[in-house]
Amino acid sequence: MPKVRMAIAQTNPTVGDIFNNLEHCLEQVRVAAAAGAKIVVFGEMAATGYPIEDLASRPDFVASAEQSIASFARQLAELDLGGVAVLIGHPASVNTPEANWANTQNCASVLLHGKVYARYAKHHLPNYSVFDEYRNFVPGTETLVFEHEGLRIGVAICEDIWQLGNPVAQLINESIDLTIVLNGSPFELDKDDRRMALAQRLAFTTKSTVVYANLIGGQDDLVFDGYSFAIDAAGKTIARAKQFETDLISFTVGDSAPPEESADSTRNDEDEWQIWSALVLGLRDYVEKNGFKSIILGLSGGIDSAVCAAIAVDAIGPNRVYGVSLPSKYSSEHSKSDALDLATRLGLNYRVESIAGGVSVIEDQLQLTGVAGENLQARVRAVILMAISNAEGQLLLTTGNKTEISVGYSTIYGDSAGGFAPLRDVKKTLVWQLAEWRNAQARALGQIEPIPPNSISKPPSAELRPDQVDQDSLPEYDTLDAVLEEYVTHHRSFSEIVTLGFEPDMVARILKLVDNSEWKRRQGAIGPKISTVAFGRDRRLPITNKFDAKTTGNEKK
Amino acid sequence: MPKVRMAIAQTNPTVGDIFNNLEHCLEQVRVAAAAGAKIVVFGEMAATGYPIEDLASRPDFVASAEQSIASFARQLAELDLGGVAVLIGHPASVNTPEANWANTQNCASVLLHGKVYARYAKHHLPNYSVFDEYRNFVPGTETLVFEHEGLRIGVAICEDIWQLGNPVAQLINESIDLTIVLNGSPFELDKDDRRMALAQRLAFTTKSTVVYANLIGGQDDLVFDGYSFAIDAAGKTIARAKQFETDLISFTVGDSAPPEESADSTRNDEDEWQIWSALVLGLRDYVEKNGFKSIILGLSGGIDSAVCAAIAVDAIGPNRVYGVSLPSKYSSEHSKSDALDLATRLGLNYRVESIAGGVSVIEDQLQLTGVAGENLQARVRAVILMAISNAEGQLLLTTGNKTEISVGYSTIYGDSAGGFAPLRDVKKTLVWQLAEWRNAQARALGQIEPIPPNSISKPPSAELRPDQVDQDSLPEYDTLDAVLEEYVTHHRSFSEIVTLGFEPDMVARILKLVDNSEWKRRQGAIGPKISTVAFGRDRRLPITNKFDAKTTGNEKK
Repeated sequence: MPKVRMAIAQTNPTVGDIFNNLEHCLEQVRVAAAAGAKIVVFGEMAATGYPIEDLASRPDFVASAEQSIASFARQLAELDLGGVAVLIGHPASVNTPEANWANTQNCASVLLHGKVYARYAKHHLPNYSVFDEYRNFVPGTETLVFEHEGLRIGVAICEDIWQLGNPVAQLINESIDLTIVLNGSPFELDKDDRRMALAQRLAFTTKSTVVYANLIGGQDDLVFDGYSFAIDAAGKTIARAKQFETDLISFTVGDSAPPEESADSTRNDEDEWQIWSALVLGLRDYVEKNGFKSIILGLSGGIDSAVCAAIAVDAIGPNRVYGVSLPSKYSSEHSKSDALDLATRLGLNYRVESIAGGVSVIEDQLQLTGVAGENLQARVRAVILMAISNAEGQLLLTTGNKTEISVGYSTIYGDSAGGFAPLRDVKKTLVWQLAEWRNAQARALGQIEPIPPNSISKPPSAELRPDQVDQDSLPEYDTLDAVLEEYVTHHRSFSEIVTLGFEPDMVARILKLVDNSEWKRRQGAIGPKISTVAFGRDRRLPITNKFDAKTTGNEKK
Repeated sequence: MPKVRMAIAQTNPTVGDIFNNLEHCLEQVRVAAAAGAKIVVFGEMAATGYPIEDLASRPDFVASAEQSIASFARQLAELDLGGVAVLIGHPASVNTPEANWANTQNCASVLLHGKVYARYAKHHLPNYSVFDEYRNFVPGTETLVFEHEGLRIGVAICEDIWQLGNPVAQLINESIDLTIVLNGSPFELDKDDRRMALAQRLAFTTKSTVVYANLIGGQDDLVFDGYSFAIDAAGKTIARAKQFETDLISFTVGDSAPPEESADSTRNDEDEWQIWSALVLGLRDYVEKNGFKSIILGLSGGIDSAVCAAIAVDAIGPNRVYGVSLPSKYSSEHSKSDALDLATRLGLNYRVESIAGGVSVIEDQLQLTGVAGENLQARVRAVILMAISNAEGQLLLTTGNKTEISVGYSTIYGDSAGGFAPLRDVKKTLVWQLAEWRNAQARALGQIEPIPPNSISKPPSAELRPDQVDQDSLPEYDTLDAVLEEYVTHHRSFSEIVTLGFEPDMVARILKLVDNSEWKRRQGAIGPKISTVAFGRDRRLPITNKFDAKTTGNEKK
């Protein structure tokens, strides 16, 4: 196997922005080639962004992608880069009598000498979890092996290496030197270990060097973490790209090519670092790719809004973040002082808007009491925040966490109002953990702790009536999060959860709250997925659903 | 082929309510058997309701369904109904090394002599449009043919007869007398004709009598319209069930069995009748299956809220419908008088709540002008409606139509607030058409016209500023709806739409409005699908999406 210099370009495409995505790709090839690369690999759908969802069923979109790829190949040749083999992902149309919904495939093209030299279509189309690829694509059936610079090279796309059968089964018999895998693999905690294990299995079975190119960036509720790599046939790391950042890494493949120096330098193994980075990247890209000038959020003095504000400041800087304190007659002094403390620590823009006027007019008009009165306060806050957001073109964040969203502990069109929910997939106990971690990180760097210690230590409260705390309505958060983990993430039944040692009435109550909140979640803002099962397209349940997890459905109620 | 008496039981199951669904099924078998039926056929997933979505991946749910089916078979035998072959749809678990997301199949069981006598698993799993069956189920691979009362009977489920290949290809060679098809086929205008054409193709190719059993009822955003039927091998109708109602029809199959009398008596060919019936059923079942006591909605005096109120009254009666007029300082006299006129015509509960107090307090506090001030009015209305809804446990309807939802002509957390959107899939021009039709229907029956003629004839206005009309911001509705039909329903490109004769700048503007409103639609209420492409799970597009339909994406912007 000859030694060949090559590169992985780990890019952050924006869905649909084909022109600018490819402009950036061109620049990456130019830089890599100048450093001697003969092969440059991009991620899955790097030309169009990923996932494209039902854009796959629009002929104009797919045609545009295909034309752009052909034109990209010509541009490369015009710049004397025609001799570099460029592998890039994009959709392409296909004619098949069986497909009638989308006539599109998820492809990787090999661009060489100004042309699309070869094209591979993904075989295995993930259609579980957040993925709908069987809906949007027609599976490929051919294996691609091509030669370049004396190397025999096989190609696969993402899910292809997670499943048995072709194309991997066929590549095993092809005596290939190099397997190139284009990926659009979204972040979940610990998923990087699974990717590496799969790549190593691939290296061992095909006896080839494996190049794994991933995307990075936020796309709606998904965050692609990058962390691309190359390993030799023995599974040893040759090169590593950064996690959560764009990167261009060059390395040499071939017999006894030495591993690159400091391949893993930007890597941080801490769970909290990874999750924080995913949340920051997810929010930043939602803001930038959708053209928002700034962010606005309500600051209650509590932990959720404090962590959201810190994520926002880490994402786009304090000058573009606007915090609003919205006190009511039930707001404690510490709420107002903790909100101000947070704003000062973060250096964000801060203002105070009382909700007392709006609340009392409507309360008096309708003679409201009880929960309706509590919800009114949350809704008047939303009206004020949205009015400011509309006037100034800001993205409103909703600061609810996964635990609250699970059990519906929020006011719809009130505190749940907003275009993006940074903590949608972050359970309450993890919110505290992230706050402690972020403050510790600041201390270690000699910086001011962003989160007021008082916001971390005080008992959580919605402050919608005097002396209210969350635990008036909900079990302790440690227990609640543990039960939710079993029910939502692990699909465990009522009786299985009770067998784990939880109190039956409490479990029944939690499960009912989760089931009854489906309609609220459907109208909630999107937010970055970081766990195995996030709410949204990862967990699709009917709103109208009388299955009673407690009675298991075949008993009379 | 011997003559055999059989029945189709067209039931309205509630998703998850297995016990009550099967109680009702038992009663249907008892009644049919008393009338001489030897075979009784239910719809797809009649035991659990349909679609079950990710409940398919919960082992407790699937086990509960299977146990309930076994127990249902025993109950039938205990009631001396063991000799009747009962075909019923339900999920069942399956062991396969390849499935790792859901280990479940979409099944039809034949219950006979107190046992599950045979079981068929659906081969073709629709995964387009509103369907996610490839996500939730493992495809079946076996064909089922069984004998009963001297008949050779083949079985298929819904999509199986829409696709080529097995099981139909195999049934053709099996010399069967009867093909039984269990369906969960949601309503779309004119879909009944396509179903009949497919059943006739099936009858001709298998040379068998075809029994097509469908579900009826609303399930979230889907409406199953029933309209089950039986046809002989020549494609001639033997029997027909009602459309949009539960039904139990008995008929005789076998050589020269005469068609039943007046098989088609409840059928109404008018598009408006079908759509109105679907909207009424969809709303009624959402209310009843989710246990709402009543409905609340804002009455503006305009056409959308008038039509929603009429649908609500047709669905659950005037005593359970609460209309609220929410005038502002910009509300015209006719708005208030038309709202009152509507309430009087419909006999619903009516009250007036001014928004002036809430609006002026917040407007003064924030010094709002322009669009932010207009949105404020819509949001104060939502706050008042939700406060009443919370206090009295009512379902709030949001009255926006498909045209508004397409172009984002609504205030999020304002007039878009609500749990259900009856007109979500009804374009503005169709709203007028339905209003005229419903009034004509009332006139023909000698009843009071439910919709005030003035609400139909006046120019539509949001009334958020003086003398505002919709056409200040939007093209004429005829043109707008025509362009939307091309873009949303037919996936046509900008240049294709312009080629049809529409003005390019206007088309570009409309397409941009549609694309930019995706985030609002995501947070919108569900509503019944009546068209080929509804918003929601029928059309899944990214929020972050820079594809510019006008430039086709490969030009610099």
